[in-house]
Amino acid sequence: MKRVYLAGPEVFLGHARLFADWKKDLCRHYGLQGLFPLDAELRLEDNASPPDTALAIFQANCHLIRSCDLLIANLSPFRGPSADPGTAYELGYAQGLGIPTYAYSEQDSEYHQRVKPCTESSGSADNSRFRDIEGLEIENFGLQDNLMLVCGLSAPLFTGHSNDAFNQQLSAFERCLAYLQVESE
Amino acid sequence: MKRVYLAGPEVFLGHARLFADWKKDLCRHYGLQGLFPLDAELRLEDNASPPDTALAIFQANCHLIRSCDLLIANLSPFRGPSADPGTAYELGYAQGLGIPTYAYSEQDSEYHQRVKPCTESSGSADNSRFRDIEGLEIENFGLQDNLMLVCGLSAPLFTGHSNDAFNQQLSAFERCLAYLQVESE
Repeated sequence: MKRVYLAGPEVFLGHARLFADWKKDLCRHYGLQGLFPLDAELRLEDNASPPDTALAIFQANCHLIRSCDLLIANLSPFRGPSADPGTAYELGYAQGLGIPTYAYSEQDSEYHQRVKPCTESSGSADNSRFRDIEGLEIENFGLQDNLMLVCGLSAPLFTGHSNDAFNQQLSAFERCLAYLQVESE
Repeated sequence: MKRVYLAGPEVFLGHARLFADWKKDLCRHYGLQGLFPLDAELRLEDNASPPDTALAIFQANCHLIRSCDLLIANLSPFRGPSADPGTAYELGYAQGLGIPTYAYSEQDSEYHQRVKPCTESSGSADNSRFRDIEGLEIENFGLQDNLMLVCGLSAPLFTGHSNDAFNQQLSAFERCLAYLQVESE
């Protein structure tokens, strides 16, 4: 059974372990073994400092990613218009290691729809681009997030129709699992 | 001369190429060759679609990272409490490839100071943790951002005292370059 690292901001939920169990059950249903960041074994001294605890979590997560055959990232927007940056990091890390990566978002909006534009540029060669209130370009390639997150995936990003990144239905996640099952047949 | 990939959200500035030149000049001053995402050569058909353009940029950036000896990431907060997720991705990608990574933020605040808490939990074993208005845990390890971004760096994150991630003074970035120069002696 292939091992799948389940990257995503659900580690921050109050019911993170329950949510992890839902995801793992769904993985099993599709013939995969889901591994969750909180599953990683921590090597910690008693009374470890917060930075030492953080380092142990980091090392355990990286070790767990390296032990997996593939990674599925939850790229639903988190505390802003983009995905959780910890998840973005893990996606890049897996791709650097050559591990196939898949991703989903429970929202189906495009990135440029989630950042408030300031003004339209007026008729220049640059007129298809928009800038935010700080004058920074709003990426607009018709993608669901920053191009670095979306373009290296082993399949198109799977999307759902919920505004809740953590809805129990997990429809976009399940769409990804169904794709992987068909691919493996 | 060592090649340094300059990861960061300054690619979205109106004066991105000018800002890139400032960073590259500073690199040269410290004996390093700075490479900027926009330096990557794009292989594009005429009239390429936006997604095809995005894919070409992605591939060119990854190719440029692989050609570098190290990476320096600008992790200053971008459109939210965390770093730009494209930069987070590139940081992870470089670490997956085994390329040494360094980072700076022009702000010196900790992550938990930048996310508005909802309520304090009351006296449980969990009492050092806080949650945001959506009930999601606010990471609080005394770090400047999500632990995945900070814990794999080859040196501590360098910080400045500006609220402007793109200030021309580039003091935190220069502190990082000075560190690398001393290390190489």
